[in-house]
Amino acid sequence: MIRQQLLEKINTRTKPLGSLGKLEKIALHIGSIQKTLTPQLCHPSILVFAADHGIADEGVSPCPKEITWQMVMNFVNGGAGINVFSKQHNINLRVIDAGVDYDFPEGINVENAKIGRGTNNMLHSPAMTMDQCQQAIRKGAEFVHQEFEKGCNIIGFGEMGIGNTSPASLLLHKFTGLPLQECVGRGAGLDSEGVKHKYNILKQVADKYQPQTPLEILATFGGFEIAMITGAVLEAKRLNMLIIADGFITSSGFLAAYEIQPDILDNVLFSHQSNEHGHKYMVEYMKGDPILHLDLRLGEGTGVALVYPILQSALIFLNKMASFDEAAVYDVEKHR
Amino acid sequence: MIRQQLLEKINTRTKPLGSLGKLEKIALHIGSIQKTLTPQLCHPSILVFAADHGIADEGVSPCPKEITWQMVMNFVNGGAGINVFSKQHNINLRVIDAGVDYDFPEGINVENAKIGRGTNNMLHSPAMTMDQCQQAIRKGAEFVHQEFEKGCNIIGFGEMGIGNTSPASLLLHKFTGLPLQECVGRGAGLDSEGVKHKYNILKQVADKYQPQTPLEILATFGGFEIAMITGAVLEAKRLNMLIIADGFITSSGFLAAYEIQPDILDNVLFSHQSNEHGHKYMVEYMKGDPILHLDLRLGEGTGVALVYPILQSALIFLNKMASFDEAAVYDVEKHR
Repeated sequence: MIRQQLLEKINTRTKPLGSLGKLEKIALHIGSIQKTLTPQLCHPSILVFAADHGIADEGVSPCPKEITWQMVMNFVNGGAGINVFSKQHNINLRVIDAGVDYDFPEGINVENAKIGRGTNNMLHSPAMTMDQCQQAIRKGAEFVHQEFEKGCNIIGFGEMGIGNTSPASLLLHKFTGLPLQECVGRGAGLDSEGVKHKYNILKQVADKYQPQTPLEILATFGGFEIAMITGAVLEAKRLNMLIIADGFITSSGFLAAYEIQPDILDNVLFSHQSNEHGHKYMVEYMKGDPILHLDLRLGEGTGVALVYPILQSALIFLNKMASFDEAAVYDVEKHR
Repeated sequence: MIRQQLLEKINTRTKPLGSLGKLEKIALHIGSIQKTLTPQLCHPSILVFAADHGIADEGVSPCPKEITWQMVMNFVNGGAGINVFSKQHNINLRVIDAGVDYDFPEGINVENAKIGRGTNNMLHSPAMTMDQCQQAIRKGAEFVHQEFEKGCNIIGFGEMGIGNTSPASLLLHKFTGLPLQECVGRGAGLDSEGVKHKYNILKQVADKYQPQTPLEILATFGGFEIAMITGAVLEAKRLNMLIIADGFITSSGFLAAYEIQPDILDNVLFSHQSNEHGHKYMVEYMKGDPILHLDLRLGEGTGVALVYPILQSALIFLNKMASFDEAAVYDVEKHR
């Protein structure tokens, strides 16, 4: 019913029917979530979860593992992509250590939620224990709850973790049944040889374990930051927040949440179509319609920050544009 | 040389090489125009040109011609799409009567640059005289010059004019040689029958005249608002401003400018890929790479306003992100 009222409101704004394209779909989506004709975005927040990955020891990334903690320090000092874009749009940013293999100094702006010092190397044993995975899910949910308590109704997630396109690829493969070949991409910049090596490693990992439940799959092939995102998504859905997905790794956390509870999709928007091979399959599988197509593949939640003004535009048109009646403009559709 | 320095700066920001995709291209483009490593967007302006079209008498639009002046009044009262999006991003908005078939009251926020009360019905005679066309071009240039004097270095254009997808289709056809069929679309919402009728009318118009020079083509098949946009683009190029194209009609004014002076493209960015059939051919012909893909087809310059924060993001990453050296983050590319 609210959906019908929203459509009526959208269609009587002074513009040709449907001419604001995806903005109209976004307005309808957010209005439907908030069950109001005047939806608002309040206290926007991005939580960036950082963690290390045992599989990085197998040379699946062109980057040394140290870049994870170095980039976390860059977040703290305000120099990374997610910093400058969040600041541009006044988005609240929190940086969470989900399991980085480094001891951060006390008193800096990194929240300690370390599950471990990086996951296990899944070439040899499952990435996480079930207990670790559940702990990560709980932690992710807690952070979201804190934001909700502050009045946040739109939340997005980002990640940092050298090697983490590997767990994301495996989760895509295991959850969707898509051939592993299609799930593996260049990550931070592998060449063709590098992608081949990454595939060979991940093929061994994929064949080694046959976990059954979504949670077991997540524990076996995931990462601490990915599992926290899964927990964060589930909690944000429970609290009926608008939830914004970023790129390949973040979306793999959404994928696990979707397998656990498919109706999360009612509250999810995909900020962008990443250039990382495999993201398009992930998005299609979750029936998403990415808003931006900017060939991004940076992660950190940057897509969430970049799409934010577009979401605002969708609500601004819904809330601020005049109707045909108000503006005394002839309404073609009414007279068809 | 500045291009090389810009690339170096882009590539040493703390992110995987190329991972900000189109934002990197935008930053490079704007930096190259402004010939600086620290480009800025100053006093952003959108000029909306409104005019009527004689061809509207042939039923080529589902909308009555009165909607042109009614929508101009809506602009004046702040209720239209372009109003709310310009306001969102603090973009200076000017509404210009390029030739609406209506006498606006004095003292309202519409600038009078009327070339006539709508163009001629080109089914019977050329839309404009050469003199009118040149007058419109001069006027468009004047408005841009005024903005430049205020410190504006980024300008975009919008339009309002019932029936104006028809001149835009004819300009696309005549300038590119693309079959007319491919150039004609639904405009503000024609059904298939309506599109067929529009095509039949425009076919007669296209066959009736064989103008040779770009200016003659623009005068014969264009519109007052389109010719003003052409003049505005040429002047903005002369002043080395960044010039942002909107949708199908606006881009037809860019197309005429491109035929007159191909190097305008050095200063042009296409804000979005419109859903109006034919826009994609127009953009391809001008080697454009539209930034947004939101299925818009509203016109008014709305695409220009909506893309503005993305342009800002491109410069913010260039100007504010830390380099690998500054952030003490390991630079993979340097060690390859």
